[in-house]
Amino acid sequence: MDAAELDAADPLAPVRARFALPDRVIYLDGNSLGALPGPVAARLQDVVTRQWGQDLVRGWNDDGWWAAPERIGDRIGVLIGAAPGQTVAGDSTSVQLFNALTAAARMRDGVIVTDAGQFPTDGYVADSVGRLLAREVVRTADPYAALRRGDVAVLAWSTVDFRTGQLWDTAGLTAAAHDAGAVVLWDLCHAVGALPLHLDRDQVDLAVGCTYKFLSGGPGSPAFLYVARRHQGGLELPLTGWNGHAQPFAMETGYQPAAGIGRGRIGTPPMLSMLALDAALDVFDDLDLDLVRAKSLRLGEFFIAGADAAGFEVITPRAPEQRGSHVSLRHPDALPVMAALIEAGVIGDVRPPDVLRFGFNALYNSFGDLARALEVLGEVLASGRYAEARFQVRPTVT
Amino acid sequence: MDAAELDAADPLAPVRARFALPDRVIYLDGNSLGALPGPVAARLQDVVTRQWGQDLVRGWNDDGWWAAPERIGDRIGVLIGAAPGQTVAGDSTSVQLFNALTAAARMRDGVIVTDAGQFPTDGYVADSVGRLLAREVVRTADPYAALRRGDVAVLAWSTVDFRTGQLWDTAGLTAAAHDAGAVVLWDLCHAVGALPLHLDRDQVDLAVGCTYKFLSGGPGSPAFLYVARRHQGGLELPLTGWNGHAQPFAMETGYQPAAGIGRGRIGTPPMLSMLALDAALDVFDDLDLDLVRAKSLRLGEFFIAGADAAGFEVITPRAPEQRGSHVSLRHPDALPVMAALIEAGVIGDVRPPDVLRFGFNALYNSFGDLARALEVLGEVLASGRYAEARFQVRPTVT
Repeated sequence: MDAAELDAADPLAPVRARFALPDRVIYLDGNSLGALPGPVAARLQDVVTRQWGQDLVRGWNDDGWWAAPERIGDRIGVLIGAAPGQTVAGDSTSVQLFNALTAAARMRDGVIVTDAGQFPTDGYVADSVGRLLAREVVRTADPYAALRRGDVAVLAWSTVDFRTGQLWDTAGLTAAAHDAGAVVLWDLCHAVGALPLHLDRDQVDLAVGCTYKFLSGGPGSPAFLYVARRHQGGLELPLTGWNGHAQPFAMETGYQPAAGIGRGRIGTPPMLSMLALDAALDVFDDLDLDLVRAKSLRLGEFFIAGADAAGFEVITPRAPEQRGSHVSLRHPDALPVMAALIEAGVIGDVRPPDVLRFGFNALYNSFGDLARALEVLGEVLASGRYAEARFQVRPTVT
Repeated sequence: MDAAELDAADPLAPVRARFALPDRVIYLDGNSLGALPGPVAARLQDVVTRQWGQDLVRGWNDDGWWAAPERIGDRIGVLIGAAPGQTVAGDSTSVQLFNALTAAARMRDGVIVTDAGQFPTDGYVADSVGRLLAREVVRTADPYAALRRGDVAVLAWSTVDFRTGQLWDTAGLTAAAHDAGAVVLWDLCHAVGALPLHLDRDQVDLAVGCTYKFLSGGPGSPAFLYVARRHQGGLELPLTGWNGHAQPFAMETGYQPAAGIGRGRIGTPPMLSMLALDAALDVFDDLDLDLVRAKSLRLGEFFIAGADAAGFEVITPRAPEQRGSHVSLRHPDALPVMAALIEAGVIGDVRPPDVLRFGFNALYNSFGDLARALEVLGEVLASGRYAEARFQVRPTVT
């Protein structure tokens, strides 16, 4: 089938109308920053002018601000296979990773094993936690082999590799970690919202994730922390902000963490960003993530077929069960090629040194988008336009 | 002079028009959540619909999102007496405290001394850092005496006590800490925006602060970190998120912190909350903080005189040099009294167990506000209305 036929047969095609996408842009970078969901602008205006402006400090009660981190956490929980009371929204992924990894390492003696090729923050945070707790940090490309060491306290791993798009087997790797006596901390950043996750079913211990990619929560929208209920009671999180206290308004001198997931709260959360995320999640209310996943895989197949035909080196796994929701191509001039593509209205991004990355959000990307993107990519390369000096210096902030 | 005369003579009276305050409310809780500044709503709408909606991921470059934490940090720097390049905005105060206190303690051997009566987070975080670094945490009401121990690594202190409103001598206590070989970390939450601060002049080492109180940045708006330039190069912050890397977009495996204050960045910041704060700071652009401080002190005197006349126990220091910008009264029924006051349109807050707290923001509070608040307070007490059952159960989330 060609793109038009695939789009005509796409049951998710109407979902695109829930987003405010600009004209004349093909947006394949929703895995970095998701597009603007329709409900956000009006909701945020109400939050600012009525809730903050009129209710003032009473908003913490009257408008539900205080309860928002757990309430929104539970909305995310629906999307990651977590029963209520195990997910809390707040802070950045980096902060959540630090908090979760420190607490996870305190649960077991031994080394911290983490992904050699993962997103930088995960490795930086592991090193910092290792230093604070005097634990060795082992970076590996083969987590199963590392677990055979027999002295692993925590396996901290990314569900989808940010660079290659490789998808790991959450259930299998979690089981292997448990067999080795380790706890597992999953980084869901490039998976949540793009595919179904089953954290409870898969017996995951802890997880963190980002909400500004496939969940389209807005630039820098709050991250989230998942802690399986069985671990909540004893979890010793190092970021002991007053919001996570059992009785925050008693303002006691000593820290007594909340009994449940509330202990994952830290300081006062950025409520405007938090409630923009809340509005963004409305888009997911009636969505079947199995349908989203099915379309995402078909989009990936379509794009890979086009890239193959054009002679690209595709570094993303081709097997559906090993592929997330973006596809990466290797090109020696990745940076100027992407700059020229963006100027031509096709927005993807680059991961250094030589990876062109194209993300597919099944909620708003069409097969027509991908066909056009491949066409423009072919034109840019054929014309050699990317070799112009102005494309050499473009910064890569995405 | 009576309230009307004081208001007529107030050079800051026109500044009130820069805020969107509700009718029929006297707002004396701007020390918890500042009122909505006029520029915020339209700015945020533009950020959402044009920057996020149309520019999408390009906003990080084209709309200056990436530079915002340092740019806004420098705007705050103007208000705390910090030359550019020493202040960065982001995260919550709790997270900033953890990051700064850990790094400060790594600069020196010895104990961590902190305020016995301070805001809970400061104590909780000190205990957590003490545990991670195996340092004793000493809580004291007399920092000068504690410094005489001779083994103090860090003095972590609040400029203004959140409960009593006591103002500490930043310059004097910093000098005493330095004489004792300690570094000093100031918590500026209840001071910034309410009075002039001179961190550079006073040779402060590190400071953190909140922007949703007197700076009116919005509910949960990002906090900030100040690091004196002389300490930046060697500072070992534990929250090693990728935003603080020397070359974040090189996405290197090892963490190399940025040379300057940029190392105080952690993860991707909540940009909607960040840019609401940016708009809020416009209100301060042409303001003289000495004028703000002078009016704030006069407001406090006016309120204290009225509280004295009504027979209240005032727990806030009377000496101007020892007083911040709120006044606290002790009352055994503080909670229901405040609930009745709020219902009558006078919004202050309560700090347990028995403190009625009234904050004065010289940018939008008038002497008339205070006269009316005192009048309503007298009526509530005289009528005994606060004893009604419905006022006994009101939550105190503020």
